[in-house]
Amino acid sequence: MGSHGTEKTVTGWAARDPSGILSPYSYTLRKTGPEDVVIKVLFCGICHTDLHQTKNDLGMSKYPMVPGHEVVGEVVEVGAEVSKFEVADTVGAGVIIGCCRECAPCKADTEQYCNRKIWTYNDVYTDGKPTQGGFASAMVVDQKFLVKIPPGLAPEKAAPLLCAGLTAYSPMKHFGLMDAGLRAGVLGLGGVGHVGVKLAKAMGHHVTVISSSDKKRAEAVDHLGADAYLVSSDEPGMAAAADTLDYIIDTVPVSHPLEPYLSLLKLNGKLILLGVINQPLQFLTPMVMLGRKSITGSFIGSMQETQEMLEFCEAKGVTSMIEVVKMDYANEAFERLERNDVRYRFVIDVAGSNLDP
Amino acid sequence: MGSHGTEKTVTGWAARDPSGILSPYSYTLRKTGPEDVVIKVLFCGICHTDLHQTKNDLGMSKYPMVPGHEVVGEVVEVGAEVSKFEVADTVGAGVIIGCCRECAPCKADTEQYCNRKIWTYNDVYTDGKPTQGGFASAMVVDQKFLVKIPPGLAPEKAAPLLCAGLTAYSPMKHFGLMDAGLRAGVLGLGGVGHVGVKLAKAMGHHVTVISSSDKKRAEAVDHLGADAYLVSSDEPGMAAAADTLDYIIDTVPVSHPLEPYLSLLKLNGKLILLGVINQPLQFLTPMVMLGRKSITGSFIGSMQETQEMLEFCEAKGVTSMIEVVKMDYANEAFERLERNDVRYRFVIDVAGSNLDP
Repeated sequence: MGSHGTEKTVTGWAARDPSGILSPYSYTLRKTGPEDVVIKVLFCGICHTDLHQTKNDLGMSKYPMVPGHEVVGEVVEVGAEVSKFEVADTVGAGVIIGCCRECAPCKADTEQYCNRKIWTYNDVYTDGKPTQGGFASAMVVDQKFLVKIPPGLAPEKAAPLLCAGLTAYSPMKHFGLMDAGLRAGVLGLGGVGHVGVKLAKAMGHHVTVISSSDKKRAEAVDHLGADAYLVSSDEPGMAAAADTLDYIIDTVPVSHPLEPYLSLLKLNGKLILLGVINQPLQFLTPMVMLGRKSITGSFIGSMQETQEMLEFCEAKGVTSMIEVVKMDYANEAFERLERNDVRYRFVIDVAGSNLDP
Repeated sequence: MGSHGTEKTVTGWAARDPSGILSPYSYTLRKTGPEDVVIKVLFCGICHTDLHQTKNDLGMSKYPMVPGHEVVGEVVEVGAEVSKFEVADTVGAGVIIGCCRECAPCKADTEQYCNRKIWTYNDVYTDGKPTQGGFASAMVVDQKFLVKIPPGLAPEKAAPLLCAGLTAYSPMKHFGLMDAGLRAGVLGLGGVGHVGVKLAKAMGHHVTVISSSDKKRAEAVDHLGADAYLVSSDEPGMAAAADTLDYIIDTVPVSHPLEPYLSLLKLNGKLILLGVINQPLQFLTPMVMLGRKSITGSFIGSMQETQEMLEFCEAKGVTSMIEVVKMDYANEAFERLERNDVRYRFVIDVAGSNLDP
């Protein structure tokens, strides 16, 4: 650990401008602080958010930007005060790598809702330097923001669980939706939706995938194990399913009417929105009042929930469905992701890639 | 009880057409069934819904229609199987007087969400006859749909609790919002809103009344006991109050933006909609996701909650603020209610009125 006192130079793949095109970029990691863990990145998932950030779709991007917030790595160095991890541990980092530790959400172990949280990339760390993500040979992360990858989970399949999996798991946990026998709906079969189906099935729920077309029926039922498939334009089918679901995980990232889905919920049912949508959504008040239904949402999950979710996935054999690629395929992977041509998540084999081609 | 076998002729005040103008109307009550209770009506509140129903604003009105669903009466006769009530008891009836007793909501004692519930008036009873409300000398009500008015509550002040009070109380109970120390918002100071403030104060909450103008400040703070008053167009005031409320009771019956109020909620806060609004409401998904906030609603409450709410009000000294009028003032009262010229509820002294003028 003689390197604590020095900054380490690493190579990542960074976007340089709103074209979002990634190319090799050399930068330094901060000196390893007492609570810091240095990880060699093994795998990193590609999330839709990476696409939006690298292309400045949210208008808040700073360049050069090394994306990636579904990171699995191997511990190569630990700070003096690090108690949770040892060298050679397989660990995971997710969407945030800092928080204020003083506000009500932080004190309640819901640091993902801290107003001063620090994003894993495209943010500024406490030392004033830009944060850079997992499309890189190494990262330094405070131990609070790392979890152990359980030995029963393949690291490449664990990577997407750190954002997509957590995003689906956290509201199930928080809203008391983990009891066997519940009836679930999943709207949208992307990165979050496909893990949502698997998690709900693992909890013993009856799962209905709801889609705008019939295209994903075989995928949903045969490959993901959904119990039912409902096309939202099928009026008799939707009417027959009215008042049957305890909750719906809504991962659709574009504006859509809520009434058809609210009508599927039972008394006290919950519509859980997980997609950031730029257009307002609409609903009529009787649709929530007459049935005491809730329209709610959730944002990733806590570090505590991340660890718990990984252990749940290990115990139940839940993994993500992925396509593993090398870093030199990253730009093509982003293009394919943009046209939803992936089943269901790209994961970059970072350690197996030549980052300086 | 020799009258069980006969229909009783009663006089009510009925609307005859969408003008909504009320006038005396003679009709018969059904024979007293084994579970039935005959009540002499003492007092009946006037709810906004009465206005909409008598004027056919919802397009579902049948005439002649005797309105009134905030009914306090005295038991004058009981059926053979009635165990809950005795002659001379003071009892209350509310918005519904029947349900299927077989569906999931009924079995969970949430009969207000039964799809086959029977409305106290403007509906058809199990015998095929129209139901008629509390603007009448007497009613026959199944014992399941009556509650005891606790002796410590003045009957005229208890009447509005049976709809307005229950509407505010039920979501507080259901959503776990009865602990002392919570921070509440109340949007709209009408029949439901004013009881909402009183109930929340009685639960030990810090209550902020939120209004579009400064007009009701003295009323809210001095008369109803609110702790704070916030004008929604006061941007610095709204910004200072961001992230401070555990819940908001939203009684506004017309379309309004939700974002300003969602922003006032803390992590896990709840916006509880209690007004049926014909226009859709809008919101942006990050406003609920980033803070795991819920937009929800509630519809009156159960009979169990009605009894419990009345006992809570007796114990805590909560009553409605009312203006008592005679039946021959009913038409003028409706006109004044339509222009919100009442503080906060009209109650008709039915027993003290000459119903056949």
